[in-house]
Amino acid sequence: MAVNSSIPKGTRDFGPDEMARRNYIFDTIRAVFKLFGYLQIETPAMENLSTLMGKYGEEGDRLIFKILNSGDFMSGLNATDVTNLPVAKITNRISEKALRYDLTVPFARFVVMNQSKISFPFKRYQIQPVWRADRPQKGRYREFYQCDVDVIGSNSLINELELIQIINEVYKRLGLEVVIKVNNRKILKGIADVLGEQEKFVAIVTALDKIDKVGKTGVFDELRTKDISEDSIARLDKFIENAFEGNDKNGLLTNTALFDDSEAGRAGVKEMSELFNLCKNLNIDNVEFDFTLARGLNYYTGTIIEVKAKGMEFGSICGGGRYDDLTGIFGMPGVSGVGVSFGADRIYDVLLELNLFPEDITSAVKLMFVNFGGEEEQYALKILAALREAGLSAELYPDAAKMKKQMAYADNKKIAFVALAGSDEMKSGNVTLKDMKTGDQKKVSVDELMKILLS
Amino acid sequence: MAVNSSIPKGTRDFGPDEMARRNYIFDTIRAVFKLFGYLQIETPAMENLSTLMGKYGEEGDRLIFKILNSGDFMSGLNATDVTNLPVAKITNRISEKALRYDLTVPFARFVVMNQSKISFPFKRYQIQPVWRADRPQKGRYREFYQCDVDVIGSNSLINELELIQIINEVYKRLGLEVVIKVNNRKILKGIADVLGEQEKFVAIVTALDKIDKVGKTGVFDELRTKDISEDSIARLDKFIENAFEGNDKNGLLTNTALFDDSEAGRAGVKEMSELFNLCKNLNIDNVEFDFTLARGLNYYTGTIIEVKAKGMEFGSICGGGRYDDLTGIFGMPGVSGVGVSFGADRIYDVLLELNLFPEDITSAVKLMFVNFGGEEEQYALKILAALREAGLSAELYPDAAKMKKQMAYADNKKIAFVALAGSDEMKSGNVTLKDMKTGDQKKVSVDELMKILLS
Repeated sequence: MAVNSSIPKGTRDFGPDEMARRNYIFDTIRAVFKLFGYLQIETPAMENLSTLMGKYGEEGDRLIFKILNSGDFMSGLNATDVTNLPVAKITNRISEKALRYDLTVPFARFVVMNQSKISFPFKRYQIQPVWRADRPQKGRYREFYQCDVDVIGSNSLINELELIQIINEVYKRLGLEVVIKVNNRKILKGIADVLGEQEKFVAIVTALDKIDKVGKTGVFDELRTKDISEDSIARLDKFIENAFEGNDKNGLLTNTALFDDSEAGRAGVKEMSELFNLCKNLNIDNVEFDFTLARGLNYYTGTIIEVKAKGMEFGSICGGGRYDDLTGIFGMPGVSGVGVSFGADRIYDVLLELNLFPEDITSAVKLMFVNFGGEEEQYALKILAALREAGLSAELYPDAAKMKKQMAYADNKKIAFVALAGSDEMKSGNVTLKDMKTGDQKKVSVDELMKILLS
Repeated sequence: MAVNSSIPKGTRDFGPDEMARRNYIFDTIRAVFKLFGYLQIETPAMENLSTLMGKYGEEGDRLIFKILNSGDFMSGLNATDVTNLPVAKITNRISEKALRYDLTVPFARFVVMNQSKISFPFKRYQIQPVWRADRPQKGRYREFYQCDVDVIGSNSLINELELIQIINEVYKRLGLEVVIKVNNRKILKGIADVLGEQEKFVAIVTALDKIDKVGKTGVFDELRTKDISEDSIARLDKFIENAFEGNDKNGLLTNTALFDDSEAGRAGVKEMSELFNLCKNLNIDNVEFDFTLARGLNYYTGTIIEVKAKGMEFGSICGGGRYDDLTGIFGMPGVSGVGVSFGADRIYDVLLELNLFPEDITSAVKLMFVNFGGEEEQYALKILAALREAGLSAELYPDAAKMKKQMAYADNKKIAFVALAGSDEMKSGNVTLKDMKTGDQKKVSVDELMKILLS
């Protein structure tokens, strides 16, 4: 009786090669987080439904995976309820837990719950999967890992600088050249101020975000559909002209007169200028100011960061920003934080496409002993024990199977060397060592074997 | 508006210290798995409900966390259904996914789905959380990690030997002395054969498993309540007498006459003897045969393994065994496998109680620079960049806060050294270095600083 053996759509199995590559990414990111003094935490996969609902907008609420209460979950629901109640209400009656949707809200909840134990500023990192009931498509999954790094409890721009350093160190280690685009939410607010269109903030910023793709006129066209007056559009036009100043987006940082009428705008420019000075002091030259960068419109209140692979159309491979009141929703107001999130799946795709994974990470085992059974097996086991004692990953094929089968196994597993030891070798205390790459074969003593494998 | 910030019962947050200790355990286990040539896989947290249901018994089915279908999950259910259908049926109408309950069934599903890509024997390890809707209690959680290591596609006892070596290497590295108890399901079957009570197999084995706690008479008393005849009990009594032979449970392995009437029994004894010979060849002397060991009664068909900390009442800290037909339920029959699972939570508790965690794992950051703001900040940032370049985990306190606050932060984070650099130090190119353990303080050059931190 064969049972259907599939997995839920949008989810994936990771085999040994994929795991080796994914671990390479995670290990690299983790090592850099540690280098900068960040400490790891983990939160449970399940959160109370009330912790998650209402934090990601209406669409987000729908995309959260809810967990059915255990036991007789229908007891709180009768036939009339089923007919009369909307699905959302029924959900609340039969489910009180859900899978986390991101790492940020659970982190905020963690900080509030553990505030007495935490020494602020709290520098934490968290590498865990999240789940979203999104329609699966290429590069978008229902289970995927996020690698988040945040500082909470400090307003200093040193934190932003540190995140930029972390981004650069991670991608340097991964061999990927990147551009870090930054903006400040206050500057976006300033632009709405200058236009006198504060209540149209979202429409303006959403349109402006597309200027690289659709050009200035495209932005203006979109704004017209959102009932922005021609007067405001003319003001935006002039603002963009002045801000770009000779095609240099940094123009805005020196031409502060543009924000004479906006306190938020001036504050944003001041913060950006300070951040650029900090970068300059450390010779960091791949940070670009981009006043059109919006990065969604969620909870950010200050700096916005977005990272792209240089000269590639891969979309963002890291992003984040500052949020002034993340824990406020859980009753702990006035704590500012800033952080970025690395998307492991996107990075994986980029490294694979650019052939940037080190070759040796998917060949984990250094040596396999061919199994000839009997005394030869005992002989091999003793040498193996010594090799492992020396830290070498090695194995004995478990069955005295046909040579061809054993060699195919070693080949498939990309094992570097194969050792053969029959009665001849046993007598002389040697093994015959075959280099699987070159095919070269020679008799060596156990000491020589050790030397070759450790080199 | 404060929102309740709690987490679901039976789940846990892990703060930095707990994470450091847990990682120490996971890293140790992972390193040993690799040493023996095992490759890592990961499977999704969610499986199809049909993959999991019916694999863990009725109780297990109830303890599986089911995930509510997204969208209008109630559409397949009307008011009559709600009144008339049992909860299990309703579950199937509104849920088609569930959280994995262990790593074994998903592994079997993985092997069947990926059989064309796998080169057998397949040696895999998997370290991931599992979820069970058990009643939470001390040491039992609704989310917990399993660390599983299995070989599938080989009948050789070399695999059992290798698992025993892995167990010993893991606990050697963790500094814990262990006893590995082994038995064979065929021997248990043989005992039922000898008693002529094959159909009472479960009752006999369940009772026998308690002999260490309740003694022989306790076992017999329990058997009487299960309608085992006095005749059979007398036979068991004699069997136990002979098998123990001078209080040595190994007696059974030499006194094979006891299984003259049971083919299964003889096969079991033969396998156990072979395994003990393999262990002897490698001077492994902490493996004990125990024919009363039952280890639940799930899918095992051959060797059973259970590990205990020597001289402690902690329960099992690792266990597993051989199963001859794990993938059969998914339509791929006749593939034998053997594996063990390390329970990270139990190991954590044991190491903590015995004070076996290395002291330095919870102090991850080597140095903190006190922040004096202004130029001093720039000076510190440049030295920091050099330290990190050398691989040293170091940070600058992000704000020019009061000295007391900054020092308290370093203290709480168990940072080893604090560096102070004011205008004096800047002029001479030095820093003042404070050893946080001894309180000693001295002026050093950047080169000296590097040397001290790297030593």
